[in-house]
Amino acid sequence: MPDAPLAFRRARAGDVPDIVRMLADDPLGATRERYEQPLPESYARAFRAIADDANNELVVACRDERVVGVLQLTYIPSLTYQGGWRALIEGVRVDSGERSRGLGKALFEWAIARARERGCHLV
Amino acid sequence: MPDAPLAFRRARAGDVPDIVRMLADDPLGATRERYEQPLPESYARAFRAIADDANNELVVACRDERVVGVLQLTYIPSLTYQGGWRALIEGVRVDSGERSRGLGKALFEWAIARARERGCHLV
Repeated sequence: MPDAPLAFRRARAGDVPDIVRMLADDPLGATRERYEQPLPESYARAFRAIADDANNELVVACRDERVVGVLQLTYIPSLTYQGGWRALIEGVRVDSGERSRGLGKALFEWAIARARERGCHLV
Repeated sequence: MPDAPLAFRRARAGDVPDIVRMLADDPLGATRERYEQPLPESYARAFRAIADDANNELVVACRDERVVGVLQLTYIPSLTYQGGWRALIEGVRVDSGERSRGLGKALFEWAIARARERGCHLV
């Protein structure tokens, strides 16, 4: 059976536990994150800071409504390139059950297209 | 005679021509910037976007009131590190007359200290 299609959308507060699960699920993340119940309040605070900032977008990739990937885009005003905006792509994570299936590539391609749509150079 | 001491301060609109001069003064910058009189209006627009954004700081280093270096700090809210803030240092440039005198290092050290003061991890 073919995979359900991917859908990209802005992350919601209710996605934060899924996102933290992915952040914690690698050797570096395991040492620096705390994926527990309840989640440390600092994650919700950070989510609000991102959501309230027009120059940051936290985006999730979903398959069948399930969150399977995440990335963050930051738009940066800059004097370089004659005063052009730049976009930084960070925090790209893929659910461990989805690895080696092209999702990381799809996340980057989506982010690059989104950055271009906002008229940004990539950092 | 020893060098006059360095002073760091937030960039002002009147510093933009000096900053663009430094941005244009390397092989890459020469092809993508336009250091001319009057400066393209896009630089002033970008300066305002930076100045109006609490998460961006454009900083100049001065010696005897003369602008001799520049850098930009961007503060990024993030879910990683249990919802920590991150700092990105970019656009570091040094006046050609000041090169090889430790100013680049001083700029980075200043920026790292400033990022820590704001409680940020460095990207």
